[in-house]
Amino acid sequence: MNTTQLVQEIKKKKSFLCIGLDVDLNKIPQYLLEEEDPIFAFNRAIIDATHHLCVAYKPNTAFYEAYGLKGWKSLEKTINYLNKKYPEIFTIADAKRGDIGNTSTMYAKAFFEDLAFDSVTVAPYMGKDSIEPFLAFEDKHTILLALTSNQGAYDFQTKAVDGKELYKQVLETSKTYKNSKNLMYVVGATKAKFLADIRQIIPDSFLLVPGVGAQGGNLQDVCKYGMNSQVGLLINSSRGIIYASKEKDFAQAAALKAEELQKQMAVELNRHF
Amino acid sequence: MNTTQLVQEIKKKKSFLCIGLDVDLNKIPQYLLEEEDPIFAFNRAIIDATHHLCVAYKPNTAFYEAYGLKGWKSLEKTINYLNKKYPEIFTIADAKRGDIGNTSTMYAKAFFEDLAFDSVTVAPYMGKDSIEPFLAFEDKHTILLALTSNQGAYDFQTKAVDGKELYKQVLETSKTYKNSKNLMYVVGATKAKFLADIRQIIPDSFLLVPGVGAQGGNLQDVCKYGMNSQVGLLINSSRGIIYASKEKDFAQAAALKAEELQKQMAVELNRHF
Repeated sequence: MNTTQLVQEIKKKKSFLCIGLDVDLNKIPQYLLEEEDPIFAFNRAIIDATHHLCVAYKPNTAFYEAYGLKGWKSLEKTINYLNKKYPEIFTIADAKRGDIGNTSTMYAKAFFEDLAFDSVTVAPYMGKDSIEPFLAFEDKHTILLALTSNQGAYDFQTKAVDGKELYKQVLETSKTYKNSKNLMYVVGATKAKFLADIRQIIPDSFLLVPGVGAQGGNLQDVCKYGMNSQVGLLINSSRGIIYASKEKDFAQAAALKAEELQKQMAVELNRHF
Repeated sequence: MNTTQLVQEIKKKKSFLCIGLDVDLNKIPQYLLEEEDPIFAFNRAIIDATHHLCVAYKPNTAFYEAYGLKGWKSLEKTINYLNKKYPEIFTIADAKRGDIGNTSTMYAKAFFEDLAFDSVTVAPYMGKDSIEPFLAFEDKHTILLALTSNQGAYDFQTKAVDGKELYKQVLETSKTYKNSKNLMYVVGATKAKFLADIRQIIPDSFLLVPGVGAQGGNLQDVCKYGMNSQVGLLINSSRGIIYASKEKDFAQAAALKAEELQKQMAVELNRHF
């Protein structure tokens, strides 16, 4: 999927919501544990109930890897289900990978070819030759960590590197990479006020913004400082939506939470466009 | 496995060699493709032929994920085989993971519990709360990327952060993390001369040193600048050993290459101890 199609979907659904599919077997309705594949059963119900309210889904690979082979199978079934039943949805493998060149190519194949995600999140620490192998894939997107939503972001990301914060160096340097048009960036909602500076450096790029909801980020602030002429935002919520209820009505409860955010997003879209 | 046991193994085998199990189906002997699980068949033969020459094996997860579910199964079989048949070997999941706190815990469970590796490589970009969940596991080791062997390392890692290179900030800051005794660090052999400075900051920690061989790093330089009173080095070679031959003799050819390095290591150990 390219970004033109993504923007069309956003305008059609009046939503730039991304739902994080971070499935923890301790937090899902316990009757689902009787299913052959509880993770997939949970995801399928959440997806069927919320797909009209969001434009993207983002499974975080950690939650699948923690369950070993079974978890990886659930991830495969989830992405296959999305690609078959809802091909208009933008899919994000939240994997935060990155390695030396030939190895990054293997990761890119894993997520873009074997699992057929539209995008993958990548960590910038190893630099150019760890990131360009992902960028080489046509109509696939590489979502680079810039300024993350957690407290640890202040350890290194906001420190001044040659007189400018590391996350700004990451933004600027990444613009010089081959096929940089395929880049998007992670910027945490908990750091919304940094967005004005960030938009000076990357005015046109899409941002994936986690941290609204459970982590305390504010939707209005993110839109005020981060929205561009092509919307340019995907706002992620995970726990706040998918764990809205632990009962039989969990999918409907998730849809209600998603709808709350979608309605706020519609207001923001009407304000800006 | 704790580091005391690791040092004992090093002295017993006169080797601090780590063999990288980065299996690419295009590079292994093609007759193995007829096996039910060619990746595992290849790894098992390499391990059986080389285990007495090395103290650690390091599968890079990218090479397994690229083959999807089958690849993950091969990884699982490889680590189970190592833990059962050669429990004296130190095992490294070269995964370069890292995420916000609760998610890093899931990654730690994936590699320390589900797959039962002794250690995992972790990227530092997201800071303290992305790393401490790994450090919380007793007798498990977290190998933090400090200064990597690739060209892209110069994009950010060697840039001055508040007057000191980023990789040095990573080393210093990580020492303040809870359970930092469980840390080891990745330092590329291609940057051996940086090791003297690095040893000023972390005199006692083990270093995982990739980049000898195919990438051009020099064993003698690494030992000169990086060895400490407890050896403190694991030197990795992947392609240079495992792809020594594409014929029926591939495992024996790998053993010969491993033995070449082991002999050089014995000389270095005799020189320093």
